Amino acid sequence: MIRVIKIGGNVVDNPALLKEFVRKFAAMPGMKILVHGGGVMASQMQKEMGMTPVMVEGRRVTDEDTLKVVTMVYAGWCNKNITALLQAEGCNAIGLTGADGNAIRARKRPPVHVESLDMDVDYGYVGDVTAESVNAKFIYSLLEKGIVPVFNAINHDGEGNLLNTNADTIASSVAIAMAGYRYRSPREVCCRCEECTHCSDDGRLTHKTELIYCFEKDGVLYDKDDDNSVIPEIDRERFAELKAEGRVADGMIPKLTNSFKAIDSGVERVIIKHARNLLDAKGTTLK
Amino acid sequence: MIRVIKIGGNVVDNPALLKEFVRKFAAMPGMKILVHGGGVMASQMQKEMGMTPVMVEGRRVTDEDTLKVVTMVYAGWCNKNITALLQAEGCNAIGLTGADGNAIRARKRPPVHVESLDMDVDYGYVGDVTAESVNAKFIYSLLEKGIVPVFNAINHDGEGNLLNTNADTIASSVAIAMAGYRYRSPREVCCRCEECTHCSDDGRLTHKTELIYCFEKDGVLYDKDDDNSVIPEIDRERFAELKAEGRVADGMIPKLTNSFKAIDSGVERVIIKHARNLLDAKGTTLK
Repeated sequence: MIRVIKIGGNVVDNPALLKEFVRKFAAMPGMKILVHGGGVMASQMQKEMGMTPVMVEGRRVTDEDTLKVVTMVYAGWCNKNITALLQAEGCNAIGLTGADGNAIRARKRPPVHVESLDMDVDYGYVGDVTAESVNAKFIYSLLEKGIVPVFNAINHDGEGNLLNTNADTIASSVAIAMAGYRYRSPREVCCRCEECTHCSDDGRLTHKTELIYCFEKDGVLYDKDDDNSVIPEIDRERFAELKAEGRVADGMIPKLTNSFKAIDSGVERVIIKHARNLLDAKGTTLK
Repeated sequence: MIRVIKIGGNVVDNPALLKEFVRKFAAMPGMKILVHGGGVMASQMQKEMGMTPVMVEGRRVTDEDTLKVVTMVYAGWCNKNITALLQAEGCNAIGLTGADGNAIRARKRPPVHVESLDMDVDYGYVGDVTAESVNAKFIYSLLEKGIVPVFNAINHDGEGNLLNTNADTIASSVAIAMAGYRYRSPREVCCRCEECTHCSDDGRLTHKTELIYCFEKDGVLYDKDDDNSVIPEIDRERFAELKAEGRVADGMIPKLTNSFKAIDSGVERVIIKHARNLLDAKGTTLK
């Protein structure tokens, strides 16, 4: 089992919660990959430097100065602090951007028409990633050695430019890429168990891959005003029902849609939960 | 041959020179490691954020806010840009702090008495490294795969704290550690050549290691006002003569003293040259 865990700004920007999360993440057995955001801190730093953060539909418009700030905050301060904290907990973490080891390539987003503004928006140094642009072989070579990759939102285009990328998309792209990676290891055997490795068609092995989104709620809520109304399991049919009933909030619809896409692309399951519940069974499981 | 190349602020802060250096570094054959500074940029960023850089005997006093800035600038902006530029030149670089893969540990420097000020100075989050604190095995595992480590001045103490370290010392510590690293590779044979691998006592192999300091002059000058007076070779005897004659400037004495210490500790030779001459025979060779 390879687990890809995404934490957002609500964890990264909260020292007490981050410390608790780091301790739990370090204690989690098996192969694992962390992907983190840090948007709140980046906006704060922009303001400290006299800049005004510009967001369009939740994505940061990234001019040259903004790229410098997000690279400093995500790849520098946040990424290296999380890595040092994990090392202190005995977890052999390595902080990475997509440029490091050519781990993830992104493609600069061309100007796009934004419906809500009825205008074309040039997001600047913003990149899009897909599972195909993930260097699963390199990432697997780290996992195999017990090293834990910690990705932030900065990637590169292979032509010397850094690009700011959505961390949720990085997490799902990495999970899909790892789910599809076939390896042949002299030490590993095909155990055909439910949770571990299993044979693929050509006799090589694949790992089952789980994607965990940690956010500020305990899971997907049936009643958005009742934190105790977590829906434990959602399949496609139930998702259609919930949408029809108007039970899933606007922001949650693309997250769930993307999660089901990841499942269609080989990811075993997607779990949405609170960071403090990382090691518990709590949360919403999509499959 | 493993080459450890150090570049300072004069290269990192100069886009045209950096681009030229990156192209030459990428073209350099064999195993190689880059160590970079970025001090000028860090001071600039401190000023932009309303802070006043404090230097004592050439070292930055690093309080909590300063640590944040240097981590953002060195490990974020400089390190990831250099890595992306190298990737664009076909060099599979990976940007690292000491925390990443537990590559280098540093020890927080206790307050020290500074003669020139006649007072005790607490440098704050400043760390010291030695060859013993370098994880040569991890670094070698990257080199063996053709991956090129790019270190910046940020290291960790293993207890969750980042520390600001002198990049010259990182370079010499890494060079000494790699010179002493004995490996056993199924593909490698002992060639006993002068420039490549040779057997150590226990039948394992070691690589000869070269340390190259790139700085703003063409080498060590016999006449500090004449850029054409580069001394091609300096051994210990010549170094003593030059000191006696007052020929080596104050700032150069600790650099040369430390270089000879590296040679005493197993490094084959140290070369001091201009970054633009990386691939030429120009410069001063110490042995």
